Parts: sequence; C-alpha cells; structure tokens
Amino acid sequence: MSGVFITLEGGDGAGKTTQSTLLEEWLTAQGRVVVRTREPGGTDFGTEVREIVLHSRGFITPRAEALLYAADRAQHIATKVRPALERGEVVVQDRYLDSSVAYQGAGRVLDAEEIRELSLWAVEDLLPDLTILLDLDETAARARLDSADKPFDRLEAEKGEFHARVRAAFLALAEREPARFLVVDAAADPETIAASIRTRVAPLL
Amino acid sequence: MSGVFITLEGGDGAGKTTQSTLLEEWLTAQGRVVVRTREPGGTDFGTEVREIVLHSRGFITPRAEALLYAADRAQHIATKVRPALERGEVVVQDRYLDSSVAYQGAGRVLDAEEIRELSLWAVEDLLPDLTILLDLDETAARARLDSADKPFDRLEAEKGEFHARVRAAFLALAEREPARFLVVDAAADPETIAASIRTRVAPLL
Repeated sequence: MSGVFITLEGGDGAGKTTQSTLLEEWLTAQGRVVVRTREPGGTDFGTEVREIVLHSRGFITPRAEALLYAADRAQHIATKVRPALERGEVVVQDRYLDSSVAYQGAGRVLDAEEIRELSLWAVEDLLPDLTILLDLDETAARARLDSADKPFDRLEAEKGEFHARVRAAFLALAEREPARFLVVDAAADPETIAASIRTRVAPLL
Repeated sequence: MSGVFITLEGGDGAGKTTQSTLLEEWLTAQGRVVVRTREPGGTDFGTEVREIVLHSRGFITPRAEALLYAADRAQHIATKVRPALERGEVVVQDRYLDSSVAYQGAGRVLDAEEIRELSLWAVEDLLPDLTILLDLDETAARARLDSADKPFDRLEAEKGEFHARVRAAFLALAEREPARFLVVDAAADPETIAASIRTRVAPLL
C-alpha cells in the first residue's frame, strides 16, 4: 500500500473544506489513514513564517514574500507530507503549488513559470497524484459567500477582476496537465461533487 | 555620480570588518556617502527571519533554510542596497551570494549552482561591482583567532576540514569571475591590504 497525495485548489468559497471533509470520511471508511493539511501554515515553522508575512509592520517585497512561502512549503512537504506518504497514508491538502502559480500569474507581479520552478525546487519535484480543481464562476462564488452571511467586503468587490484572472489561471493549469487534474463544477451540490471525486480517487488507492 | 556595490567575502577571522572600516574611512574622505551593511540581518525583516533560523526549536530542512536566507537577501537588496545605489552611494557589504554558494558547495547538502540561481532570482541579478575575497589559509586563520584570545572551540576545530573546503570554494568562484573579484592575502598587514583594495576601488568611483 503506497501513499497518495491529493490537493484541492480553487478560489475562496469554492467548497474546498467541505469536499476535503467528505473525502476524508470516505477514505477513512475505506480503511485508509488520512492526513489533512494546508498551505500556508501546516507546520509550526510555517506558522512563524506566516506571522512575518501577515504581521510584519514593514513592507515585504514580492520576491521576499514568494521565497518565504516557498520556505514554508519546503518545510511542510519535507517534514509532514513526505513522511506520511512514506507511511502509506493519504494526504489531503488544501492548496499547493498550483495556488501559488495561479495567484502569481493573475497578479502579474512575478513570472508564474518562475514561481512554479521555485516551488518545485523547494519540494524536490513532488507533484500530487491528483489535484481537484473546484471551479466556480465569479457570480456563483459571490452568491455563495453572500448566502453564507459572509458578504464580500469592499476590497473583495474591487478584486472581482482579479478573481476572474485567478480562475482562468487555474483552468489553464488544469488544461496543461489533464492527467493530474480533476476539474469539477463547484456550483453542483456537494454530494454530486463528492461522488465524482470518489470515482477519480478510487483507482489511486 | 553612480552607486558602487562592493562586497567582502572570506572565512570568519579573515579581517572583513577591519577592511570594511578602513575602506569606509577612505571612501568618506573621497566625499562619498557610504552604506555599511551585512547579510544575513541587514533589515528588520532579516532580523526576524534570522530569529526563525537560529532560535526555532524544531529542525529546519536545508531547502527551507536556503529559501529563508534568500528571502532575507531579496528584502535586503530591494529595500536597502538598490535604493542606496540609485542615490549614488557606495554600499560596502559584509557577505553576499558568494558566501551562500561557497558554504553550500563546501557543505555538499544542496547544489551550489542551484543556490547561486536562487540568490540571483531573489536579487533580480544584482551582482557587485567588486567582490573582495580576503583569503586566509586555515593555519593563519586559526593563529589569528588564537592570538585574539578567541580560541577555536571544539566544534570549530572539528570543522577544520569544512573551512578548508569553504576556502577552496571561494577561490574557485574568484577564478571563474576574475573581473569581479579581487583576491587579497589576508595574512598581510591590514594597511597593505587596504592599499591594494583602494587601488582597485579608485577606478570605480
């Protein structure tokens, strides 16, 4: 029995947490040991790094920030994810390098391809066995957050165009690596989505 | 009048601080504004990053550590060194990417060429106008520290072979870029060394 590395990607409000939980329950029922984790911040080290990024009083340059996140990723993968995979466990991770690439590509500050290479160097080329992209168009994402009593704040509203670019970047990544990606319509009902995820995960177990 | 970026490299005890001070005095006498700085730790951000590396209770993987140092470097160069150079000042810096490359190459944990590329990405390819390598053989370095009443501790003694590899790595870097490097015999008396440094710096002003 070998380990399986599954990542969930998509914008905020796409349902990553819900699907991770449903997937974990099903995997556990199949007799597998599941490690739920997330980036950034999956380790103590990552928490410290995130503190610097989020709470540093001074301005952090884009490259310095990208390198800090890459450091977090390197530590997280080496100390938490790889050991779990070596023990034959299933890692279900909220966000990974595709998020870095998509958000950087959408922000257009740094080169997305360079960010991908930086991440791959950090993790010694560890790619997921499966990446589930929960794809939600902007209108649906906004409606979902509104109905959850978490309305977009002004900043979020202003960032509408940015979110559309992030979505397009995720879809482009999925198109580039169809064997690794499963793209699901996140506007469908959660059980339908969970079923299509299980269908794709089953052969990996 | 344009900025000049000068770095000093070499093992501990080679006299980098003494020569930086002598160079700063001379540059100031020439009417130049001098910024003395160092890596790691030349910014508040760098101090925080160094705190993580030095005092984190947990084990930090080599790649995570290299990425943290690269983050420090990115921030330091973008916020302190480049602005000074743009103001036409002279930056005299204790250690830069050659130290990362030489120490990594000597430690043989990570690929030295990859570390160089990582650093260059962090700093958007900023190389010094001049790098002064204070070259001191192991025996002289040890004698110098002994006479300064700072004897090598046991750990340092055990690391003798490591220091020899660092020295060889620095010399190999200097050989690869002779136009950028000035290699001086750090066993010579400080005034003699300072004079040869001034001779090389003068045309850059």
